[in-house]
Amino acid sequence: MSAEQGGFRVALLGHGNVGAPFAALLEERADAIERLTGRRPVLAGVLTQSRGDFGELLAASDLVVELIGGLEPAREYVLAALAAGLPVVSANKLLLSQHGEELFAAAAAAGVQLRFEAAVAGVIPVIRVIEGSLAAAHIERVHGIVNGTTNYVLSAMERGLSYEDALTEAQQKGFAEADPSDDVSGRDAAAKMAILARLAFGAPVRLDEVPYEGIEHLQSDDLEYAREFGLGLKLIGTAERIDGGLSVRVHPAFLYAGHPLASVTGSFNAVTVESQAITEITMSGPGAGGMQTASAVLGDVVGAMLPGTWRPAPATPMELVRDVASAFYLHMEVADRPGVLAAVTAVLGEHGVSIKSVIQRGMGESARLVMITHPVVESRLRDAVDETVRFDFVRQRPRTIRVIEEEFV
Amino acid sequence: MSAEQGGFRVALLGHGNVGAPFAALLEERADAIERLTGRRPVLAGVLTQSRGDFGELLAASDLVVELIGGLEPAREYVLAALAAGLPVVSANKLLLSQHGEELFAAAAAAGVQLRFEAAVAGVIPVIRVIEGSLAAAHIERVHGIVNGTTNYVLSAMERGLSYEDALTEAQQKGFAEADPSDDVSGRDAAAKMAILARLAFGAPVRLDEVPYEGIEHLQSDDLEYAREFGLGLKLIGTAERIDGGLSVRVHPAFLYAGHPLASVTGSFNAVTVESQAITEITMSGPGAGGMQTASAVLGDVVGAMLPGTWRPAPATPMELVRDVASAFYLHMEVADRPGVLAAVTAVLGEHGVSIKSVIQRGMGESARLVMITHPVVESRLRDAVDETVRFDFVRQRPRTIRVIEEEFV
Repeated sequence: MSAEQGGFRVALLGHGNVGAPFAALLEERADAIERLTGRRPVLAGVLTQSRGDFGELLAASDLVVELIGGLEPAREYVLAALAAGLPVVSANKLLLSQHGEELFAAAAAAGVQLRFEAAVAGVIPVIRVIEGSLAAAHIERVHGIVNGTTNYVLSAMERGLSYEDALTEAQQKGFAEADPSDDVSGRDAAAKMAILARLAFGAPVRLDEVPYEGIEHLQSDDLEYAREFGLGLKLIGTAERIDGGLSVRVHPAFLYAGHPLASVTGSFNAVTVESQAITEITMSGPGAGGMQTASAVLGDVVGAMLPGTWRPAPATPMELVRDVASAFYLHMEVADRPGVLAAVTAVLGEHGVSIKSVIQRGMGESARLVMITHPVVESRLRDAVDETVRFDFVRQRPRTIRVIEEEFV
Repeated sequence: MSAEQGGFRVALLGHGNVGAPFAALLEERADAIERLTGRRPVLAGVLTQSRGDFGELLAASDLVVELIGGLEPAREYVLAALAAGLPVVSANKLLLSQHGEELFAAAAAAGVQLRFEAAVAGVIPVIRVIEGSLAAAHIERVHGIVNGTTNYVLSAMERGLSYEDALTEAQQKGFAEADPSDDVSGRDAAAKMAILARLAFGAPVRLDEVPYEGIEHLQSDDLEYAREFGLGLKLIGTAERIDGGLSVRVHPAFLYAGHPLASVTGSFNAVTVESQAITEITMSGPGAGGMQTASAVLGDVVGAMLPGTWRPAPATPMELVRDVASAFYLHMEVADRPGVLAAVTAVLGEHGVSIKSVIQRGMGESARLVMITHPVVESRLRDAVDETVRFDFVRQRPRTIRVIEEEFV
């Protein structure tokens, strides 16, 4: 039990839907971990809001697992543990995306490991794969579905449910929290992409530098039209090199049916790492679930028990590119009268937006004009849309959703 | 260049379609590798059949990369390098699946690393993921598509090509070798599954203990009927716990359309690792290509340059289970006369084989009887088929192909 007996004492901060299964899994896998590492992990103690003393727990531990979430007191505890020379395993994406550099520096100064595989993509060991690929391959892009809640909701909407009904179903099945705003707003995915951008490209990107759009404003009829164009809808996080800079962003995107991410449904996550040398590696797995996250946390604990001192490469700031080219889906409600399509396409054309396909459909007084554009930088598309709003025949601001067209390979 | 200058000297054995791009990639990535590991990798020399001296090269190197293939002299060189205290990186699945225990023991005795990620599933870092998951999760099954040549051929057959035309196309595009027999027979996939079984379950399984079936005997009309049942066809390698034992096998299998492996097409590989704790992780990527394999080899070189001494856990023999239950596709050519279906189903029923769905189709004098069975152990199905052959109305031995029915999650 004690260090003298060779036990490896794990302090657990937080005992919620990840902490509780983690404690159980730690005991269940203690034999296997002892065989692999030569030391038997034991739970040194648990700190929650209502029980435990952090200082006492720290003094009696060899490693700290932080599963409290949120910024404070998680940050304070992690820094204290690192300063005391203890390795730390965390699943806290908010903390890492806001204070990553401070934590990495503290870990480096103390010469101990800080691991956070569970913070990024559920059970998918994307950090491990990026870490192993980095030196051998020049990564060009990391992108994927990194939020299980929104993917569940979008899959349900593709089955015909409204956004509200889909979200309710996700909550009933435990795939969405009572307050889902961090997930549906895209903020959770943005935090994860900030972390992945730091690891894959070395660029210290903070959450507040990542533009994100969520899924709250999507309409069922967007999905119906998309089906007519042969498109599926996902919330996609992207970190990619563009013109010597870096673009990190999160937004809903329509994908063509053959796209590797198009078939990822329900609460699953999937991440693709692309480079010229490896072409691409796609990894998928459950993106939510306390047991699955606990397993990823335990994997990090074992990693920290083994020799080796993995840590992110020193930060190398990169310019953040904000105006990125994309094809767009454009959904307009207009008065049903002659000349409307001609007027709209003329304005788009003046801004360099060219149309790939159009569906026009009357509905009494009004008509819907649904278009897919060829790729165009966002700012031009936005300027063009701003101008169409001035027409008296445009009933409300057109809705725009990005379309990912390119093949991967 | 020399060790005194801090260079890390890499000996390259073999300079073919993986060795040549490896040498180029090593130079291209030298800066990045130096930043990560603190040492700059340099090519110490190249040994081929026509140039170089192994003893001299060994004496001037810090690590050996073996890309010769085949058993000898590859085995002799790897053992000599390990005995000299040098870490070894190999992409040689035949060598590892035949002499793995000897090589692991030699590496352990010398206290150096032996790495072979590129031997298993192209660029997919499946060994790295298994290694990282093992201690934290009790792996139940590893299975997938581990041969890019056969997956390319099957994808082409699904487009309507005959087996011969599909193979010719694969050869023309560089996805099949001039002599494709190791690939199309399933032997290459069997070697890879033996290696994966050793890593995931600790069981020392040799290639000659893995039953394998290839794709040479598949007919285009099998694929046509399968389409009617909503099935796709893949060559699947499996290593799984069954009743306290282990089954390792390779065979063609029909998959239902929603199966995660069903959408893996062309020369791609995909491997799924399943356990109760993690549910499943699926990884996919290119399964062939000299540049891709070279990138996986370089990843192993970097891994061997970093601190840490990864090696497989000690071998723990497990009983090999050979008679595994599966659903089957059964294709019979019979005389077109009354009572045939009744007679066949009666024989199947006597052996405990129950039918899930049937298609019967006349073609003049003959008829085809195509059935999908419920799951049944192979030996029973084989006995039943043996008995049907005795009927005078059965024109030729029925063809059987396994069907993977279960959902993953």
